[in-house]
Amino acid sequence: MSTIVEADVVTAVSAIVRRDQVLTDAASLAAYSHDDAEWAAYDRPLAVVLAESTHDVAAVVAWCATNGVAVVPRGSGTGLSGGANAVADSIVLSLERMTAVLEIDADERYVVAQAGVINDRLRASVAEKGLWYPPDPASSAISTIGGNAATNAGGICCVKYGVTRDYVLGMTVVLADGAVVQLGRRTAKGVAGYDLTALMVGSEGTLGIITELTLKLLPLAGREERAVVGYFPSLHAAGVAVAAIAHAGIIPAALELIDRTCLRAVDDWQQWSLPRDVDTLLLAKIDDAGASGDALADRVAEAMTTAGGVNVERASEQAEVDRLFLARRLAYPALERLGPVLTEDVCVPRGAVPEMLARIQAIAEANEVVIANIAHAGDGNLHPLIIAPEGDDAAKARAKVAFDAIIAECLALGGTVTGEHGVGLLKLPGLADELGERVIELHRSIKLALDPLNTLNPGKAFPAAEPAAG
Amino acid sequence: MSTIVEADVVTAVSAIVRRDQVLTDAASLAAYSHDDAEWAAYDRPLAVVLAESTHDVAAVVAWCATNGVAVVPRGSGTGLSGGANAVADSIVLSLERMTAVLEIDADERYVVAQAGVINDRLRASVAEKGLWYPPDPASSAISTIGGNAATNAGGICCVKYGVTRDYVLGMTVVLADGAVVQLGRRTAKGVAGYDLTALMVGSEGTLGIITELTLKLLPLAGREERAVVGYFPSLHAAGVAVAAIAHAGIIPAALELIDRTCLRAVDDWQQWSLPRDVDTLLLAKIDDAGASGDALADRVAEAMTTAGGVNVERASEQAEVDRLFLARRLAYPALERLGPVLTEDVCVPRGAVPEMLARIQAIAEANEVVIANIAHAGDGNLHPLIIAPEGDDAAKARAKVAFDAIIAECLALGGTVTGEHGVGLLKLPGLADELGERVIELHRSIKLALDPLNTLNPGKAFPAAEPAAG
Repeated sequence: MSTIVEADVVTAVSAIVRRDQVLTDAASLAAYSHDDAEWAAYDRPLAVVLAESTHDVAAVVAWCATNGVAVVPRGSGTGLSGGANAVADSIVLSLERMTAVLEIDADERYVVAQAGVINDRLRASVAEKGLWYPPDPASSAISTIGGNAATNAGGICCVKYGVTRDYVLGMTVVLADGAVVQLGRRTAKGVAGYDLTALMVGSEGTLGIITELTLKLLPLAGREERAVVGYFPSLHAAGVAVAAIAHAGIIPAALELIDRTCLRAVDDWQQWSLPRDVDTLLLAKIDDAGASGDALADRVAEAMTTAGGVNVERASEQAEVDRLFLARRLAYPALERLGPVLTEDVCVPRGAVPEMLARIQAIAEANEVVIANIAHAGDGNLHPLIIAPEGDDAAKARAKVAFDAIIAECLALGGTVTGEHGVGLLKLPGLADELGERVIELHRSIKLALDPLNTLNPGKAFPAAEPAAG
Repeated sequence: MSTIVEADVVTAVSAIVRRDQVLTDAASLAAYSHDDAEWAAYDRPLAVVLAESTHDVAAVVAWCATNGVAVVPRGSGTGLSGGANAVADSIVLSLERMTAVLEIDADERYVVAQAGVINDRLRASVAEKGLWYPPDPASSAISTIGGNAATNAGGICCVKYGVTRDYVLGMTVVLADGAVVQLGRRTAKGVAGYDLTALMVGSEGTLGIITELTLKLLPLAGREERAVVGYFPSLHAAGVAVAAIAHAGIIPAALELIDRTCLRAVDDWQQWSLPRDVDTLLLAKIDDAGASGDALADRVAEAMTTAGGVNVERASEQAEVDRLFLARRLAYPALERLGPVLTEDVCVPRGAVPEMLARIQAIAEANEVVIANIAHAGDGNLHPLIIAPEGDDAAKARAKVAFDAIIAECLALGGTVTGEHGVGLLKLPGLADELGERVIELHRSIKLALDPLNTLNPGKAFPAAEPAAG
């Protein structure tokens, strides 16, 4: 792509959308050159286009296909795997201005919205009609539903309510040549053809660019939330409680783990007087109605106590519960204040959570790196956060060793290298180890079928073929 | 494929598996030449192979790929769209002997089983460990989990618990060249690469042959089943009740409709003294625990009464409830006793159920055909069953007109041509109308990518390209 002249690209694209939708200043190019995975590689894009409609997206993608220019789609850039990082000579296509909630159907329980709608805003919009959109990534205040779908985002309530994929009924997609198609359905069920909707969800913009989504909703009513909080003397003890809750057949609405490092980082930032003398916090939510919900909460508390939890209690103060869950959501940005964070996203069988947490701790010690831990523990989805001080190259090198070691241990325990953040760039080597060459080849053949010119977010989501020799 | 010599194929395949796994007698070839969609076209296969392992499947598929012979995979042949109908010069590959339940993990809540396990047997196996596999197609006593996955089967409890796709975590698949791959995961969450598992589910054996499945389970405990039964003076009135229940935001565990024709057909067969003087029966199940479940059941009963239901009651006799649900399951085979049944599987928005039922009735009258109705009404998934007496070609022609008219009305109401039975052969024209040419082209390109020789169940699931002129 060395023949591309930047000025020509900007001129051409500015003729497709309005000139003020095209950003070319150095600050914007830098800001849009990567997502929140700063450890992953990125390059400076040729331009940033702020799409305002499916038509804009289609026109830009069509031009890029004709001219062999790579397109890197982007929501609000909160990804943690580098999936939205710019590649060389690319156009970053941001959908952040596509913020219309187009239709809410309370009877059929779906919402149609543009891809740039922020998750929390979507949830608030449907709540006004008595409806609930469950997927709640920790980034819900800042991430878009389009990005959520492109990465198949998880969240805090997945343990009971599933992930983004489980709520995507249909979508409008711009294909690699700029064609606009509708996939999926609005009906409760449907098996008309291949499940291309599910194929697009989690494909990280490599097969098409999602511009609108039809999302399934649940009734808001009927749930009664209770929280159970327990403090544990070690990561491992908290892990034992997680395994015990799974073994008891209990499905809480959330079961989150926050370690001391994260609690302190949030408290240092927010000054909330969070507990500082504990090692690990487990935070469960039970939302079954009535006596059965109360009974489940009691059983969760019992499992925590048996595993060595202290001060296990049904949190009675809603304000306290809200603050603890908010602390969970703020853990990641709080840690980022301490330096660049290398984020893991491994998911292991629930029963393997204590062992995996112990191995993570051992890896931290062996490599002399700080590893903080937050986890959607009830799913077995752990987020060890490896912190290296800014500018300390030796620490950064040790962090990378720890990162790879955690992936290896996760695979050894029957886990997956990415529970919810996606492959992006950071997990490309891990993915190859997990899936094997033949399954990676399937990815390549599907990519080639849908994007023969390889202009849609090239190099992301799965390892490209080794260049042929000679 | 006119060069294929049948005897050579049989000889070759008999050298791959044992000779007694290869059926070539006329009765077997006839029995295995089609599924339960007798109206769809089928041909005589060259041979039937009864695979006993993934290795058998892989070896036969590899041989077929090398020799350009089509493979038609098959569970127990209960499909209703012709997806398992034999094509000319093909080998029918039956997985019905692959009946091993390989692993049940109660803590992680999954089961690993071979594709030929009958749905009800799987459910019984996991129930012994306190676990529940929700997907319950009406054919659960006779259909295999492999067939369920290949068609993304629905069922009676989908309205609350989802369809087969929602429970398939991973699978072993034989690809078109005979390679064996593992797709998906066993962990609660995972986004490692494209969702090839979801792509395989519902692809009707056209992209790969599923030989083993890892299925997600729920705890068996915690549900308390209650039934509400209402009798309605017309299909339309029952439809109004369905729409009202959806409008009230109630999600029952099941909401089934059975019309007079079906009730009588079951009663004539089973002699159960089912009610014969009613027009339409609605059968709801509510399984929320405790007082909230009771309250929901009351609200369902109220919605039924308001819509004109008579004798609406909370069924207190479990035996009566079981018999009514069994009547629902037996409706299809009961009608088949009256003659070949042309089965619809349209799915419309829940609010459109009364209008769609009225249009079905109008189509029956306009075309002078008998159309019986069963429906997963709570999903908007209707099964108008068009009956033409054996040998009455004029009636058969009118039935075909009615079939097409129902599809057209369903699409006009925002529905899909297949809610759960799959496209097979019967829905090929309807699918093209629903998806449009460009989305059909996506199917063709994915098929070409994964099965370049077109040997896996060719001609099914989506319309093949028009042959090039000249």
